[in-house]
Amino acid sequence: MWDIQLNRSGEASLQYQLFRILKDGILSGKLAAGEALPSTRELAKELGVSRNTVCAAYDMLWTEGYILNRPGAPSRVAEGLSLRLPEKPDTPRKADKQVMNIRWDFATGKPDLTAFPWKQWNEGLKQAAESLTETQFAYTGPKGYAPLCEALAGWLKRARNLDVHARDIFITSGSTQALYLLTEILHQNGRGFGLENPSHPGVRTMIRDKGYPLCWMPADEHGADIAALQGQALSAVYVTPSHQYPLGGILPADRRAALIRLAEDRDFYIIEDDYDSEFRYTGTPISPIRAMSASRIVYVGTFSKTLFPALRIGFVVLPEALQQQWKHSRNYMDVQNPVLEQAALAWFLQTRRMDKHIRRMKRLYGQKRQTLLLSLHSTFGDTAIPQGDASGLHIALRFPDYMFGEAFAKQCEKTGIRILPVSKYAESASAYHDTLLLGYGHLTMEQIEQGVKALFDAVAAIK
Amino acid sequence: MWDIQLNRSGEASLQYQLFRILKDGILSGKLAAGEALPSTRELAKELGVSRNTVCAAYDMLWTEGYILNRPGAPSRVAEGLSLRLPEKPDTPRKADKQVMNIRWDFATGKPDLTAFPWKQWNEGLKQAAESLTETQFAYTGPKGYAPLCEALAGWLKRARNLDVHARDIFITSGSTQALYLLTEILHQNGRGFGLENPSHPGVRTMIRDKGYPLCWMPADEHGADIAALQGQALSAVYVTPSHQYPLGGILPADRRAALIRLAEDRDFYIIEDDYDSEFRYTGTPISPIRAMSASRIVYVGTFSKTLFPALRIGFVVLPEALQQQWKHSRNYMDVQNPVLEQAALAWFLQTRRMDKHIRRMKRLYGQKRQTLLLSLHSTFGDTAIPQGDASGLHIALRFPDYMFGEAFAKQCEKTGIRILPVSKYAESASAYHDTLLLGYGHLTMEQIEQGVKALFDAVAAIK
Repeated sequence: MWDIQLNRSGEASLQYQLFRILKDGILSGKLAAGEALPSTRELAKELGVSRNTVCAAYDMLWTEGYILNRPGAPSRVAEGLSLRLPEKPDTPRKADKQVMNIRWDFATGKPDLTAFPWKQWNEGLKQAAESLTETQFAYTGPKGYAPLCEALAGWLKRARNLDVHARDIFITSGSTQALYLLTEILHQNGRGFGLENPSHPGVRTMIRDKGYPLCWMPADEHGADIAALQGQALSAVYVTPSHQYPLGGILPADRRAALIRLAEDRDFYIIEDDYDSEFRYTGTPISPIRAMSASRIVYVGTFSKTLFPALRIGFVVLPEALQQQWKHSRNYMDVQNPVLEQAALAWFLQTRRMDKHIRRMKRLYGQKRQTLLLSLHSTFGDTAIPQGDASGLHIALRFPDYMFGEAFAKQCEKTGIRILPVSKYAESASAYHDTLLLGYGHLTMEQIEQGVKALFDAVAAIK
Repeated sequence: MWDIQLNRSGEASLQYQLFRILKDGILSGKLAAGEALPSTRELAKELGVSRNTVCAAYDMLWTEGYILNRPGAPSRVAEGLSLRLPEKPDTPRKADKQVMNIRWDFATGKPDLTAFPWKQWNEGLKQAAESLTETQFAYTGPKGYAPLCEALAGWLKRARNLDVHARDIFITSGSTQALYLLTEILHQNGRGFGLENPSHPGVRTMIRDKGYPLCWMPADEHGADIAALQGQALSAVYVTPSHQYPLGGILPADRRAALIRLAEDRDFYIIEDDYDSEFRYTGTPISPIRAMSASRIVYVGTFSKTLFPALRIGFVVLPEALQQQWKHSRNYMDVQNPVLEQAALAWFLQTRRMDKHIRRMKRLYGQKRQTLLLSLHSTFGDTAIPQGDASGLHIALRFPDYMFGEAFAKQCEKTGIRILPVSKYAESASAYHDTLLLGYGHLTMEQIEQGVKALFDAVAAIK
């Protein structure tokens, strides 16, 4: 009758195979609308299977509406089912981009995961899994796990000199989601978004994708020039006042005050991204600008640098006026974070293992920073000037009179160095061509020393 | 001099307290611009603290730009710092909505978490924590943990008769995020979004929030009426073909084929939300509509019902044409899911503990369904007609000639019953007033039996 091949050693049951073959025949038009199917007895005999098998396959076809049954008559193919055949799933695809062999990766924003206290963290996960109750594994809403918000309030006080109430803290999937949600809820029709120049390309792309006109604040060694915002109609301004990304400046108090006054006068919000200032190596800790105004500033923090990126936990401290809209948007975006990591992090903070971990990492990163600065000095002498090295996991390195472009970065990649000029982070292609960014937190001392030597050769080659 | 009160038994260091008091004085204008600060020696003596303490506080003020230092002259308050004082953090807030005492909660979409195999799941978490390497705790991109995608492809074949390739599977934070991202990437200017009526209010709100014109497909006991989409300009159509939410119909093959032909002719995508069809109690399993077209259908699945909501893992099977845009959008939304749960779920699927769990839960939910149907029959007789009960964790219950409105739901809540009429899920307020939705998966047998009795009294009261 029809060419039906059943695979008796396959994983799929015979009845499912038969159902699938008949269904494909109907969809492809091989079995036309109105065509009668053989009786179950007949087909069973022909295929050498039990009649039950054929009955089950017909039953599946009938349930899904592929065939019509009438008492005393053969089953017939239903009307209006013919489709083009589905595409072959194994058409070849474009090959993935070839991965370069990078020996010295000066990319920024990468913590040293080899020094992470995995044993302690796993202990936290175990504690969390054992202490959470069933209702906590159901939906618990967009704000975040309450004990984590409490623990975070204490942590912000200890680590960042910041007094905030747990009720104003909202947990997010990293700072990326925090910024994404803020671009949604802070939108005021036609008004722009203030950004530092240079700044993180991801943040810029996200804000541009949302359709905001961008208003630039040129950054110098003291951070963003707030005066550039005068007269602009703004929805929000994004700043990194504790450690300007990527140049590393600390926004001085007068610019902070000017920014807050402007936000109040012109009715916009300030997003403070405090992405890595836990690691400060010299002098006293820098207060977040959030300490100066609770009503105009959204403080954004993340554990991607202090713990690890795949944890996906960040948070915002929100002015009360934004909280309702935030909850609505988060609810419709992805509801909430998974509960387990939140509970583990709460434990890690409550037991002050976090404090110990940060002290340990600060020592380690401090040693790496020292190694980097010494290597740079002994290799480049006065040719290169390190900037923004007082905190964080990267530095900016200025080579007066040099020009580093796309070609330089590509040439470096060929010799095993991943490094970017600041111009890649700048809006105007003509600016910051003399400065390179060096992430060092994730590198070994040896990689830092060798990487600086390799960089010397690469820089010498373009002179 | 100034009224400075230091708390010697507080958690904050004396130097930080002093810094904070001086900073607040400057921001509030109590210390005016240009005003000279006392020498460190003088202030230390007055406060009875060490000179180092005062030096440290002054240093913090200087680092943040609150004061200016000149050699041989007293430190002075910088210009332009006066701000209104930050709001008191302890202003009273609106009290939270009062929580009703609900004894019989017929809300839909809630799995029975008391029957979840927590011990096995925790074993999976342990396995995952031990087997993941450091690089897997860094950013690993928006697609999802590769072994989970592989395990999911196998699971879809076993559980849903669906042949898909792991490369087309993308992990999400639940189906909510999947839908949210799809509303972003499927947008075609001015074109609408097709939705079933009635449908999930959350889905409707999300799509409406995104600014899409909505095009309605009235649903009957066979699911959505596809013909209602004829002539509409559409970006996408959202359907629940295996178990129409909330009425429970199975979309017949001819409507499926018509929908796919329409999508091809009019250039739109079909979103298939397969939210709970793992639990099918009668007859043969229903194939996803995805099996009929790989190029036009986005298949959305979730583990919120089969495992637990706070896991936050769902997935999409994406046509190749959408994958690039998806990766871009996910990258800027929240980058990726946490890795730990993904690895635990991969283990749970690979070891087929998932298969065993689903079989166990299907038995349990089947017993609850039986109890519910028997209770309804013995309590309401022929007054109430159960619908859409062949799969899932809820049924629709039709009372011909009855009218259930907002007042009925409120009255029920007062007597301890949470229940909603389907009209709450419908676009037109006049429809589906005779039908109630009963979620039962999370209830005990006793709650089901007592809840049905309580419901009888509530229904009798409105006759």
